[in-house]
Amino acid sequence: MLQRCFVTGAAGFIGSALVDRLLAEGASVVGFDDFSTGQAAFLEEARRQAGFRMVEGDARDTDAVAAALEGCDTVFHLAANADVRSGLQHPRTDLEQNTVATSSVLEAMRARRVTRIAFTSTASVYGDGAAVPTPEDAPFPVQTSLYGASKLAAEGLLTAYAEGYGFQAWILRLCSALGERYSHGHVFDFYARLKSDPRSIEVLGDGRQRKSYVYVQDCVDALLAAVLHAPGTPTILNVSGAGPCTVDDSLGWICDELGVAPQRRYAGGDRGWVGDSPLIWLDTGRLQALGWGPRVGTEEGVRRTVRYLRANEWLLERRRPCA
Amino acid sequence: MLQRCFVTGAAGFIGSALVDRLLAEGASVVGFDDFSTGQAAFLEEARRQAGFRMVEGDARDTDAVAAALEGCDTVFHLAANADVRSGLQHPRTDLEQNTVATSSVLEAMRARRVTRIAFTSTASVYGDGAAVPTPEDAPFPVQTSLYGASKLAAEGLLTAYAEGYGFQAWILRLCSALGERYSHGHVFDFYARLKSDPRSIEVLGDGRQRKSYVYVQDCVDALLAAVLHAPGTPTILNVSGAGPCTVDDSLGWICDELGVAPQRRYAGGDRGWVGDSPLIWLDTGRLQALGWGPRVGTEEGVRRTVRYLRANEWLLERRRPCA
Repeated sequence: MLQRCFVTGAAGFIGSALVDRLLAEGASVVGFDDFSTGQAAFLEEARRQAGFRMVEGDARDTDAVAAALEGCDTVFHLAANADVRSGLQHPRTDLEQNTVATSSVLEAMRARRVTRIAFTSTASVYGDGAAVPTPEDAPFPVQTSLYGASKLAAEGLLTAYAEGYGFQAWILRLCSALGERYSHGHVFDFYARLKSDPRSIEVLGDGRQRKSYVYVQDCVDALLAAVLHAPGTPTILNVSGAGPCTVDDSLGWICDELGVAPQRRYAGGDRGWVGDSPLIWLDTGRLQALGWGPRVGTEEGVRRTVRYLRANEWLLERRRPCA
Repeated sequence: MLQRCFVTGAAGFIGSALVDRLLAEGASVVGFDDFSTGQAAFLEEARRQAGFRMVEGDARDTDAVAAALEGCDTVFHLAANADVRSGLQHPRTDLEQNTVATSSVLEAMRARRVTRIAFTSTASVYGDGAAVPTPEDAPFPVQTSLYGASKLAAEGLLTAYAEGYGFQAWILRLCSALGERYSHGHVFDFYARLKSDPRSIEVLGDGRQRKSYVYVQDCVDALLAAVLHAPGTPTILNVSGAGPCTVDDSLGWICDELGVAPQRRYAGGDRGWVGDSPLIWLDTGRLQALGWGPRVGTEEGVRRTVRYLRANEWLLERRRPCA
């Protein structure tokens, strides 16, 4: 039973969906966000609810987190730098915003004697070349991106706190999410570029990179399934759609939704950028054993994302697509 | 061929042994250490050599590292907090001194266009319950100590720099080291306590924890074998003695060297402390394929360590054993 929840990254894509769900389930929620990438508009519904309180702050500020955390019993730590591709331009960002921030949240919890934490990690921790669908106990991976490395470092902090301080830790390794309030990633980039030039589009890599996606409400389901039903601690769970689609597939659905037929130009190579993985698909057997299953498939997820962006073009102004 | 080497943690146990070896092999060496746990005395031989220069500084200070790094071509990053057991008393120390410091060293290298780095990681990254002898590609481990988590986080930074910036990265996962200049660990603790009371000794756990050790010169051999002979990047190599011994075995050799026969009292449980692993033994097949093999066995390593401490009791004053 969830009672008093604390959500970092509450104004983000997945965070705000989680906040809305927790409130709908009858929990009270303290949201925490620095609004560096989060959007106040995503919390409009939440702000109308008596059970919701929002605190603006930086997750790296242990004292600020500890102050906001008062009276909460379960932390959902979603605040993160999610801009995977630009890691190499700003190599301290992932470390600061994903690893050090997680340490600060854990220390704030320890100060407040709050010991339950769910954390959104990433499929990127499996690095490159893992067998697919990749299980949680795949061979010891080699990190290929600063993003993956920073999230794996945060996982290590959570599990060491579980061992050392008796924390209950739930770690969810997510594929890229799709759906309402989506504001970052390949659909966003394609949408923005097709809007400015619907006749021609450049595709990173060869278009045959295959990735799994997961609908945002399925992510929220996974977080709740973990916290409510997973036995033991720490718990590590993959979250992934049923199978991968190619970049070309996804672009096809986006174009179809938009009614455009651009000429595709391929940058070439088997991956989109340095540190990108040409195939991401996770085994979700553990999560399914908790009763979870994806409710929305990949094509439908991509199409809903495009429709959402079309109805919310203000997001294109707020968030610039990747260069 | 090693020419101009930069060694962080140069005044440490393994670091100073590496410095001496590199100088003996004809390389020039810039040593870097903050002397928080390193000992100036360990560098007495090195300081007499024309090819050696020592810089006092904090590895977290990117500018200081970058300044000292000028003209070097290969970094050996050994500076670290190696006090595994006290992680839970000071939960930011490992993150700061092992993870953030590694990021700073990597950034200093990038600023100086130095791209070769060897790094001493730890068997602790395998967490608890790995099959033994543990290979480098064991199943994805769950971190049980802040020390292991911080070193794995540093590994991730190195491999992401290898992928993203073309760094040549050699990661050595070391068991506990033994030998001359040893100044931290179970032999040190037993020695100090037997000196104050030779009739009675408390043993953490049940005495049957089994760990592998490696002689310090074998560690140095491993570092050089990696840098000189390992193909590809990143390279990850276990460094371990031929097999584990129990705490009771080791205590027996220590007592024999000291000519004491204390009554042993056991704290109980299957491990020495929270986050300790009751069995550590690494598969060194990869390293052996490079021509490496341990030259000094565990019993001889323990005995040499005791003899070294007996000849250097000043270390007991400088470094307090674990509480």
